[in-house]
Amino acid sequence: MTSPLERIRIVLCATSHPGNIGATARAMHTMGLSRLVLVAPRHFPHPDADARATGAASLLARAVVCATLDDALRGCALAIGFSARPRELAGEVRAVRDAALEAIRRTSNGEVALVFGNETSGLSNAELARCEMVATIPANPAYSSMNVAAAVQVAAYETRVAALGNAVWRAPAFEAATHDDLEQLHAHAARTLAAIGFFDPRRPRRLMPRLRRLFARARLEKEEVNILRGILAEIDALRVRDRAPRDARTALESER
Amino acid sequence: MTSPLERIRIVLCATSHPGNIGATARAMHTMGLSRLVLVAPRHFPHPDADARATGAASLLARAVVCATLDDALRGCALAIGFSARPRELAGEVRAVRDAALEAIRRTSNGEVALVFGNETSGLSNAELARCEMVATIPANPAYSSMNVAAAVQVAAYETRVAALGNAVWRAPAFEAATHDDLEQLHAHAARTLAAIGFFDPRRPRRLMPRLRRLFARARLEKEEVNILRGILAEIDALRVRDRAPRDARTALESER
Repeated sequence: MTSPLERIRIVLCATSHPGNIGATARAMHTMGLSRLVLVAPRHFPHPDADARATGAASLLARAVVCATLDDALRGCALAIGFSARPRELAGEVRAVRDAALEAIRRTSNGEVALVFGNETSGLSNAELARCEMVATIPANPAYSSMNVAAAVQVAAYETRVAALGNAVWRAPAFEAATHDDLEQLHAHAARTLAAIGFFDPRRPRRLMPRLRRLFARARLEKEEVNILRGILAEIDALRVRDRAPRDARTALESER
Repeated sequence: MTSPLERIRIVLCATSHPGNIGATARAMHTMGLSRLVLVAPRHFPHPDADARATGAASLLARAVVCATLDDALRGCALAIGFSARPRELAGEVRAVRDAALEAIRRTSNGEVALVFGNETSGLSNAELARCEMVATIPANPAYSSMNVAAAVQVAAYETRVAALGNAVWRAPAFEAATHDDLEQLHAHAARTLAAIGFFDPRRPRRLMPRLRRLFARARLEKEEVNILRGILAEIDALRVRDRAPRDARTALESER
């Protein structure tokens, strides 16, 4: 059983700049797509394509070159044409997110092609007419001219998210502080802050609830509790070494 | 009142290739972002940046160049660093979609920076430590090396969708067929198909329900009903002009 992403073809029509073919291969590979089909590219293979593909050279090596869009779409269950501008006969236009979901759904019937036009003019009406669905990337109406490889990047990204969800790498898991760790931290903080005169237990106001709120929101790790208690312990020790740090500071401040 | 998108800064750190700065400006402009900040770019301004920016030259002209990331983030309500790979101290990592929603939310407090690293190594740990949040673009774990302008394109796209929703251009509205239009079409089709012998009203089987289902799914326009009835009328006329087209066809077929 192949992954849905292995059943997605990216079809580039009449691409003028080979650099864009390379950048498209890289965009595809970052999102786990591998099937690149080129319809009548002006220059291919080409060193500019290789340079922009960087680590995706294998996709270029396996790219299929076709003479016509019909050849490129042969055997597909669904072809989705991408366009940035309104067309009279486009019919229903889907945002790329919806189109990507539909593309993944339809891979159960066979391969699905995502079709992109030439750099200057996009897909022609004749090319769009070969596609059963039109998709567009929501863009700035005053300037919707995306680079073709950038458009493929967004479409490939949405396709990957549709297939595999929004899963991301995780930072290494740290051990969360327990309730007891936190209570001991708060008790220690209250003691130390009282000792240095910042907290008056007889007139507590809202200091400790505010600190509790802050540390609760931060969802402290065990190691972070140790660091904070280390700082508190250092302050405690300072008060033993240097009898009256607070009095000295108060004196300094009153001189200003 | 400014739009949330006007409060998003794109910050590029130590960019090596000026072409990527131009491609970033274009990616931003297509999504309605306008504030580009460059931290210690190797070459800027540069003709390669201008060439790749195409219609987004005005963003390059207004780009702010800073010596340090701290300078670039001055005055921001939130900085979100983008990274493709796990870092020990990254803390919570958000997928770009969630991060974009948070970015738009936080524009109510001030400007929000989306921060991208150098082409070769991405953001350093020291640069990431300057960011309150880490975002990542879900990518192929075997090859997550996105071009920096392509990463900006995806982040800017998600930011635009978060701010403005998934709205796309519509094909021009056509007048939908009414219930009466459809009933007349079905009646006409039944008559004509019966006349040419394709439909036997005494043994109707499931032909007409199948056609009704097809045309209901297609949500026909008035003009399309007219085209279909025009075809039916032409078939009707053919039968008047040429007495026995069906017999002729049947004879031909039996010769094969």
